[in-house]
Amino acid sequence: MTQELNQMGFAQMARLIRDGRATAEAVMQACIERIELREHEVVAFTCYDADAALAAARLADQSESKGPLHGVPFGVKDIIDTDQFPTGWGTTFYDGYQPTRNASCVEMFIRAGGILFGKTVTTEFAYFKPGKTANPHNLGHTPGGSSSGSAAAVADNMLPFGFGSQTAASLIRPASYCGVPGYKASHGSFDLQGVMSLSPSLDTLGFLAREVEDFELARSILCGSTPSELPDQDTPLRISLFRGPHWTDGSLEMRDVCQRAIDALKAAGAQTGELACPEMFKSLTEAQKIVMAYDVAHARIYEYSRYPDQLSTQFKDLVESGLAVSRTDFENACITRDRAARILESLFVDTDVILTPAAPGEAPAGLDATGDPLFSRGWNLLQVPCVSIPYGKGPNGLPLSVQLVGRTGADDDLLAAAKWVNQQLNPKS
Amino acid sequence: MTQELNQMGFAQMARLIRDGRATAEAVMQACIERIELREHEVVAFTCYDADAALAAARLADQSESKGPLHGVPFGVKDIIDTDQFPTGWGTTFYDGYQPTRNASCVEMFIRAGGILFGKTVTTEFAYFKPGKTANPHNLGHTPGGSSSGSAAAVADNMLPFGFGSQTAASLIRPASYCGVPGYKASHGSFDLQGVMSLSPSLDTLGFLAREVEDFELARSILCGSTPSELPDQDTPLRISLFRGPHWTDGSLEMRDVCQRAIDALKAAGAQTGELACPEMFKSLTEAQKIVMAYDVAHARIYEYSRYPDQLSTQFKDLVESGLAVSRTDFENACITRDRAARILESLFVDTDVILTPAAPGEAPAGLDATGDPLFSRGWNLLQVPCVSIPYGKGPNGLPLSVQLVGRTGADDDLLAAAKWVNQQLNPKS
Repeated sequence: MTQELNQMGFAQMARLIRDGRATAEAVMQACIERIELREHEVVAFTCYDADAALAAARLADQSESKGPLHGVPFGVKDIIDTDQFPTGWGTTFYDGYQPTRNASCVEMFIRAGGILFGKTVTTEFAYFKPGKTANPHNLGHTPGGSSSGSAAAVADNMLPFGFGSQTAASLIRPASYCGVPGYKASHGSFDLQGVMSLSPSLDTLGFLAREVEDFELARSILCGSTPSELPDQDTPLRISLFRGPHWTDGSLEMRDVCQRAIDALKAAGAQTGELACPEMFKSLTEAQKIVMAYDVAHARIYEYSRYPDQLSTQFKDLVESGLAVSRTDFENACITRDRAARILESLFVDTDVILTPAAPGEAPAGLDATGDPLFSRGWNLLQVPCVSIPYGKGPNGLPLSVQLVGRTGADDDLLAAAKWVNQQLNPKS
Repeated sequence: MTQELNQMGFAQMARLIRDGRATAEAVMQACIERIELREHEVVAFTCYDADAALAAARLADQSESKGPLHGVPFGVKDIIDTDQFPTGWGTTFYDGYQPTRNASCVEMFIRAGGILFGKTVTTEFAYFKPGKTANPHNLGHTPGGSSSGSAAAVADNMLPFGFGSQTAASLIRPASYCGVPGYKASHGSFDLQGVMSLSPSLDTLGFLAREVEDFELARSILCGSTPSELPDQDTPLRISLFRGPHWTDGSLEMRDVCQRAIDALKAAGAQTGELACPEMFKSLTEAQKIVMAYDVAHARIYEYSRYPDQLSTQFKDLVESGLAVSRTDFENACITRDRAARILESLFVDTDVILTPAAPGEAPAGLDATGDPLFSRGWNLLQVPCVSIPYGKGPNGLPLSVQLVGRTGADDDLLAAAKWVNQQLNPKS
């Protein structure tokens, strides 16, 4: 094998273990070796237990298959509860807090044979204040947030898969900055029991993985979905470039990479085009901020009341701005969302997939901020499924990605399209 | 005063305390005396701390007003976390489990000056297996479930207010059986941080209170809403009887009480009528069962996996039926819901409020079941706001109620209408 075990995708690892071509122990050992080599610099984890993970892998090698993830390790963003590791939510006052239960997503993975490896770094309450994680491609640059640790661990070949979540841009942005595929599901796709609530109108679970094909496996485990098939070759995929309201706020290289991706997909047989940005979409970023602030002020009122001196100024400001949002303002922002969602639905009559920037550009330098959520806020408000696919590099040699957007609820179709797009943009040598 | 302090509504108590006409201590003492007299038979609480509550009331009497609930006690269904009392969810294995945080609804009430008195009994996971609570009107009859303790405590004048929740019929049914006003909000109205998740598509927080007027105060504290005004007297409220798909499954006395309520409201000046049941509404109960089973299987997969021997057969069957629901079946049930919601929206063109049964009839005899959720499943699936208003008694002398249903999101209008309806049906002597 030319590829090391720890560099492989999650589904491929599971196939090798199932077919007896690799042991779960060897897979786990390869991941641990990588972590021991790199973790002191990347700091992807808040905690893990290599010995327990190795013991679980050895047990898996001696056991009947529990399911499609048998023997495969995964990481969990530290806003997601596990009964094995504490959950700190990126805060000081909950540091070391040990939940009694696994989040549903963790338990579903364990039931499918997956091995919980450890917890990955998040920002404070999955908002702006960064954790200690660095971008594995350049340790002086942010990995993005808030799913910082999951993105960095997967990008650095420490783990094949990490759970992430998104309220503004917390999954697609770190995926893009770290150069790994990311999938944020349609809002409401996956059960959130045991996942910290920040904004119930927006919070969505998702995945960071080494391979795009891994998303449909993980999705089927969490919600029982059946992967979609692409239409046959005579029915080309319809992919439309959507510059959106913030196109000129992004970097030249991001604009270039989107255009090059569309051209490459056209050359590969897709029916490509471009969609004008509906006027109304220009209100979405502001509406997302209103909905998020209102929701956060209610969801995290306890910590705001009880730990005022241990919160970042950014987070306190967010709660206070949310407490000042009237119910009417919140409802009006939801009406804006619903109107834009109907317009978006009409755009999907003529296209299957939207292609749009995943982030403003490369990961910015410095670890004191996680980058701008501008290119995801609106999509996240619209509750649509999104996939980011690495494509090209920026002037600093750091990864860029394009973002694919599908119809709300049609995640399986989007994932099938994303596999095809990825095959065209990143053909396996 | 002809009314004892512990018999008063929550808003009235707050007014008396604010105006110096009663002390918070006297209010609390009156509630405690009632509890000490009756709790051994009614068993409304899983735990409470009378000394701590009295101390908090005395402190309130010596303090500046914290807000509109200053000095007023409230109870919390035991699927809702508090940092003062453990949360058992009606199970044996979580009995005594102490959360680190208050649920958002609890914290918002405390910030408004309310005094957390104790936790009220729920059924196992807020599903079917009853707790120990009896109906205060007849200890041999069920109080209904799953908000059993909150309904019984309020009905028995132990507390003026209790938090409840509803996934199938868990708030409107116990309110009806215990003869107290109940309000189940539009789905998504109130933050659910710290509230046990059973079915995210259906779970909704709500209130049980001595007075209908208390709902708008509690609602404004939780979500910042502004109470609605009724139209002037020249614009009569339009109220329509809706027999719905299960009319003949209910008791004769329930049908009679709905008809008598409509007649009384017509006599009081409402513009009354009757709405035929759309054919499609006959699918709603079954669709609710599918959505609920699917959701529960995901939300409570941890307990199903880890405590199989400590779950009731009913609950295990529910999870297993949910694990057998395909994603497609779940999505089809959601499509049924969405279609019916559009039909319901069209019905509200010609009516302001729907009046329909709250439960099949009086509280059934026996404490080994909590009654049939048939008259709420469909409404709960539709995510509409519902208010139950006590009206009349059945052949066993136990309370009956009518249920008012409003447009999704128009809770403030429904609460204004409910106040008027209650004034007509239950005029203050």
